[in-house]
Amino acid sequence: MQLPTSYRHIVLASRPRGEPVAANFRLETVPVPALREGQVLVRNTWLSLDPYMRGRMEDMKSYAEPQPLDACMIGGTAGEVLASRHPGFAPGEQVVGRLGWAEMGVADGALLRKVDTTRIPLSAYLGAVGMPGMTAWYGLTQIVRPQAGQTVVVSAAAGAVGSAVGQLAKERGCRAVGIAGGPEKCAYVVEELGFDACVDYKAGRLADDLARATPDGIDGLFENVGGAGLDACLSRMNPFGRIALCGLIAGYNGEPMPLSNIRYVLSMRLTMQGFIVSEHMALWPQGLAELGALVAQGRLKYRETIAHGLEAAPEAFIGLLKGRNLGKQLVRLA
Amino acid sequence: MQLPTSYRHIVLASRPRGEPVAANFRLETVPVPALREGQVLVRNTWLSLDPYMRGRMEDMKSYAEPQPLDACMIGGTAGEVLASRHPGFAPGEQVVGRLGWAEMGVADGALLRKVDTTRIPLSAYLGAVGMPGMTAWYGLTQIVRPQAGQTVVVSAAAGAVGSAVGQLAKERGCRAVGIAGGPEKCAYVVEELGFDACVDYKAGRLADDLARATPDGIDGLFENVGGAGLDACLSRMNPFGRIALCGLIAGYNGEPMPLSNIRYVLSMRLTMQGFIVSEHMALWPQGLAELGALVAQGRLKYRETIAHGLEAAPEAFIGLLKGRNLGKQLVRLA
Repeated sequence: MQLPTSYRHIVLASRPRGEPVAANFRLETVPVPALREGQVLVRNTWLSLDPYMRGRMEDMKSYAEPQPLDACMIGGTAGEVLASRHPGFAPGEQVVGRLGWAEMGVADGALLRKVDTTRIPLSAYLGAVGMPGMTAWYGLTQIVRPQAGQTVVVSAAAGAVGSAVGQLAKERGCRAVGIAGGPEKCAYVVEELGFDACVDYKAGRLADDLARATPDGIDGLFENVGGAGLDACLSRMNPFGRIALCGLIAGYNGEPMPLSNIRYVLSMRLTMQGFIVSEHMALWPQGLAELGALVAQGRLKYRETIAHGLEAAPEAFIGLLKGRNLGKQLVRLA
Repeated sequence: MQLPTSYRHIVLASRPRGEPVAANFRLETVPVPALREGQVLVRNTWLSLDPYMRGRMEDMKSYAEPQPLDACMIGGTAGEVLASRHPGFAPGEQVVGRLGWAEMGVADGALLRKVDTTRIPLSAYLGAVGMPGMTAWYGLTQIVRPQAGQTVVVSAAAGAVGSAVGQLAKERGCRAVGIAGGPEKCAYVVEELGFDACVDYKAGRLADDLARATPDGIDGLFENVGGAGLDACLSRMNPFGRIALCGLIAGYNGEPMPLSNIRYVLSMRLTMQGFIVSEHMALWPQGLAELGALVAQGRLKYRETIAHGLEAAPEAFIGLLKGRNLGKQLVRLA
């Protein structure tokens, strides 16, 4: 087979001011580099788009280095080995990695993971059995630590992380309550994912609807959004409640996000903890084993919102930040 | 000796709207009740005034029942046994208890603690070797958990709790930085208590002064105040920093207290935990042993602001909420 000599990728052309726009990105064609010993050439089938990427676009102190300008956008990928100079990989094998917004890429074999697609679709390794699933698993089992019968609330409940949080909470005998934007998402969360309730924050009755959905208060909160939803949940927390702070998508474009109800952290003796799942790799085998088994058994459901073609990635990402997706936002290439 | 037949106490006459005022309190004379089996009559020498009392005056959901109207104001006390029908107590013994804003009171012996005043003054059992000291010890050792060489910041640093936090942090090899209001308090915190630095939040340069005082960032924060100081500290936190949320005195009168910098909890993977020291009684013997030894050795310093006479209690309490005190606010009775 003739190997390709060039491929296309998308670089960050400029840092967004507020909401990202298409002009912040640039499509480029670059040569396929020669493989060095230990390296693998992978053609990406799927690109993962995730809210954390917005944070990386800022040139500010955070948990990771900023996305460099004029370099390929970072991101998780799933695809097929085209060529290998690593003994652990052979052409045709399915792998996940972090090759970014690109049609293909070269990576050290140590940074790729072979996956079994006989019972789990390749794309799920970017979602329910990948980083978003592990994010849900880690925050729920290591920070929220709910007991059977307790109430767990998760925001962005129709998203890749939130949908897994609620289902994992149900597996543990909890009452799972979602917060999502719009009746379509809320119906999906309750009817398809099996949450006990879902509050539509766009309906304009957040406090009342949340109170109705959490008659016994909130014991654990998995927070993906921040802003008014977090404030509303704080006022419903039970003593010694736990809050896993996973994301603050409401403020990712620099929106001010004042929190009014911090006093409940004191009066209810809450614990709020921020986390980044990539810092807890030791727990990934355990988490992925549970997630993989649940997906294979059909007990952990997920949906995907799929954009087609590399050039569709920027618009899909912009839509993700606006909550246009249902479930995991992907870009399909091949 | 003739036992008194009546005594004076102060009741909550009405709930404050915003800042408490003298009219919220009422002085009353009440009869000394007859002692039942197991009870002890104590004449209070010292009343403790503490910021948490403001929270109890609200009729709202919190960690404790509200202070009832027309009942004696709650509070810690230290005094002398006048009469006893409990085998563990005899007249003349020094005890601490929770008899409230009163010249004397009757308590079950089980709710009193005999204290040794040979090396530690009686009043210190309401401060450095009492609830405020334990609050400092618990929050620092169980939540902030600083390591030698790390930077610990504490707000209300000249107060009863804050002054102990910084000194206990110094004992553990940390850099201790206070935040306090005014040059007099800051000088006391650095020169007398031995903190490495103290930021005067009233000087109008909070962010700059805090940055100068914490050149290596903040690893642990003991928060007593909330508001702008908490926001400023959040932006200086190092990865995996810990925040013990002990008090939010800036909002105790119902002032809005929006927090702008919650995003650092996520980006720096912070843990913020609210706590109430009275829920951790199992650790009091260990903490009080350390605090008592340090006070007896002169290594844990403290000051007292003393109001004289029961009728002075309301004004002293109002002043405490305004930060007029230096160190522990007490009322001396006898």
